[in-house]
Amino acid sequence: MNILDWNTLDADARTRALARPVQAVAAQTRASVAALIEQVRRDGDAALREITGRLDGVVLEHFEVGEAEFAAAERAVPAELRIALQQAVTRIDAFHRAGMLQPYTLETAPGVTCGKIVRGIGRVGLYVPAGSAPLPSTALMLGVPARLAGCREVVLCTPPRRDGSADPAVLVAARLTGVHRVFKLGGAQAIAAMAHGTGSVPSCDKLFGPGNSYVTEAKQQVAQAGAAAIDMPAGPSEVLVIADAGATPAFVAADLLSQAEHGPDSQVLLLSDDAALIAAVQAEVEAQLARLPRQAIARQALEASLLLKVASIEQAFAISNRYAPEHLILALREPQRWLEQVEAAGSVFLGDHTPEALGDYCSGTNHVLPTAGAARAYSGVSVASFQSQISVQSASAEGIAGIGPCAIVLARAEGLDAHANAVALRLEAAP
Amino acid sequence: MNILDWNTLDADARTRALARPVQAVAAQTRASVAALIEQVRRDGDAALREITGRLDGVVLEHFEVGEAEFAAAERAVPAELRIALQQAVTRIDAFHRAGMLQPYTLETAPGVTCGKIVRGIGRVGLYVPAGSAPLPSTALMLGVPARLAGCREVVLCTPPRRDGSADPAVLVAARLTGVHRVFKLGGAQAIAAMAHGTGSVPSCDKLFGPGNSYVTEAKQQVAQAGAAAIDMPAGPSEVLVIADAGATPAFVAADLLSQAEHGPDSQVLLLSDDAALIAAVQAEVEAQLARLPRQAIARQALEASLLLKVASIEQAFAISNRYAPEHLILALREPQRWLEQVEAAGSVFLGDHTPEALGDYCSGTNHVLPTAGAARAYSGVSVASFQSQISVQSASAEGIAGIGPCAIVLARAEGLDAHANAVALRLEAAP
Repeated sequence: MNILDWNTLDADARTRALARPVQAVAAQTRASVAALIEQVRRDGDAALREITGRLDGVVLEHFEVGEAEFAAAERAVPAELRIALQQAVTRIDAFHRAGMLQPYTLETAPGVTCGKIVRGIGRVGLYVPAGSAPLPSTALMLGVPARLAGCREVVLCTPPRRDGSADPAVLVAARLTGVHRVFKLGGAQAIAAMAHGTGSVPSCDKLFGPGNSYVTEAKQQVAQAGAAAIDMPAGPSEVLVIADAGATPAFVAADLLSQAEHGPDSQVLLLSDDAALIAAVQAEVEAQLARLPRQAIARQALEASLLLKVASIEQAFAISNRYAPEHLILALREPQRWLEQVEAAGSVFLGDHTPEALGDYCSGTNHVLPTAGAARAYSGVSVASFQSQISVQSASAEGIAGIGPCAIVLARAEGLDAHANAVALRLEAAP
Repeated sequence: MNILDWNTLDADARTRALARPVQAVAAQTRASVAALIEQVRRDGDAALREITGRLDGVVLEHFEVGEAEFAAAERAVPAELRIALQQAVTRIDAFHRAGMLQPYTLETAPGVTCGKIVRGIGRVGLYVPAGSAPLPSTALMLGVPARLAGCREVVLCTPPRRDGSADPAVLVAARLTGVHRVFKLGGAQAIAAMAHGTGSVPSCDKLFGPGNSYVTEAKQQVAQAGAAAIDMPAGPSEVLVIADAGATPAFVAADLLSQAEHGPDSQVLLLSDDAALIAAVQAEVEAQLARLPRQAIARQALEASLLLKVASIEQAFAISNRYAPEHLILALREPQRWLEQVEAAGSVFLGDHTPEALGDYCSGTNHVLPTAGAARAYSGVSVASFQSQISVQSASAEGIAGIGPCAIVLARAEGLDAHANAVALRLEAAP
């Protein structure tokens, strides 16, 4: 882990300290993803069969999970896990439901009523990765808001295992959230299938979910081509912890490690105004690392991590807002008081008893969040991500009599006489 | 205008009838936009000076509009226009304010509080075109929600005129909405400047606004590169009118023409269950066309337009939802009753006295809307477009004692032991 003192760095060194490793998509990745998408677009299910055989090592006649496999999954998942998934669903549902968009109307002028109506996006596609491990929690984080949004059809793709089955916990999670159809497809081919549709996979209006660099690149390519909208650009997971002298080093170390174990490219930052705390955290990280099964991955991530000594907690927030982390942990006394300083982050965790893992699984908030600084302009997944809002306006004869002349003046100023005429005709026809 | 009967068409013909003209970005456009962006990124203001001289035919030493030019604009704009702009601002403000995101919190379990806070995106860039005519209304539609969102800095670019000045009405509109800084820059170079920043133009987190194919391509390229987020993909403007036998042909014709005059690539569709109405509208279009200054543009758009005879109004809605128009006019008796049938559209206009022009200018709704079928997954610009929502969670010792075990089960199921450990450490430390 690298320890730096922010106030000894010049502007260039500060920029370098906060720079994410460039996620340069290799030209080869871009080209091979484009080729996969084109193959799926052209040959449909035959392409999916060929690609899945080649990349996942399993030949599937049918991709869709049937009732028998769902039933087997229900039997295979331990009761304890099923109960935990159900409890998580309950809290994710409660939190997302409370933040749902509401339709509204108001009279903006006498006889002119304007409002918004809310509609679930017709058909949405969810991607649940199963790289180093399957992620049933991601099925919950996408499936619950999709159900609340009222989408007509919710489709989910997750990679097949070598034996041709899907991960049972992912299937149970999908069923708990009411996902309509599950397909055993992974990687760029899954994204291509959901964007363009094949004989078996329906084409979806918007695609959601994390994935490896191929999945991410495929999402970008189908979005760029206008084949489907996507939730957000995705990159490696990140945490930034702001800790004061009163923080518990063992807790802070555990939080840094639970980010580091995600992958070798995970981003881990600690900012503190207390050098002793930084040293204590460093020692704790070493002690806890030794006991972790994913030690090798975490060590790689920690090599690029940063422990940053700052002059004050205020300065830590200025740096954090500049970095715009996906996860922001405030290991501070009176964290609620500091919250107003947060300008850009995906999800914030307050105080010593709120590890990121709670938000990852079951506090109720979503864990599909903007990374790589995208939190400056994007928000995490919510019910609104699965909906569109449609403006509606209605003017009576009195209404257009009142505001029509304003529209005519503006239309003429813009040289759009047919616009002015469409209003003038109604005014002339008024009784 | 082409007249077709939907129920005589086979599936392929129906698909063709509803297909937008492919907005294929010529490889040459893509390359020249990429070159402009790279030049601006590398050479900053010097590049802007060179490009503006070459493409806009004016050499500018400084791009930013100063106080003297704002003052001259105030004098140049007629009182009638200024008043109309102010009235529009009042209604746009009222409508957008009513729909603003609200922060919220709830207890998802005893001792576990989750919520969302709302923050204005730090710095946003607005683009206001001035192609065939400057569009002060677009400055209002972007500037008002940006102000309501609480963005720290709002930047606006609009192309310079040959004499080096900006359109006075656009400047007055920008000032009315509280835009902080205005730059005389157009085209892909304006987008590049706002995305990457130059000596004079600050780099923005998110870019908004319509534009020609160069502007649109530039927005796509900077978004793809992660340099700035963008509001939505943009294409030519569209209207779909659903009219019944009771509709007034002159009104419907005027609405079709006010879309057609936007540009030769504007999309115009009329769906009706009444053949006589369709014929009457067609006659009215010819009659009104003769009196329009932008007749040549409108005629071009009308050549690709479609008058579609349907079996029923229900069928018209099924077709409209499949097409997902930017603007949807319901020239129907009891339009409010039909509203529930609308699944995908940008903005809806109810009844005989609500021409699209009202929404374009001053009903209060936004006119920056999804085109080319994007309404299936995107919504028009709102205050939320200029904000991010940040999740916040806070667990007490009691809170983590309650939900921590659930997180541990899920973390272990996903093979993420450090996640489980971060929770377990807190549980062990509990009094």
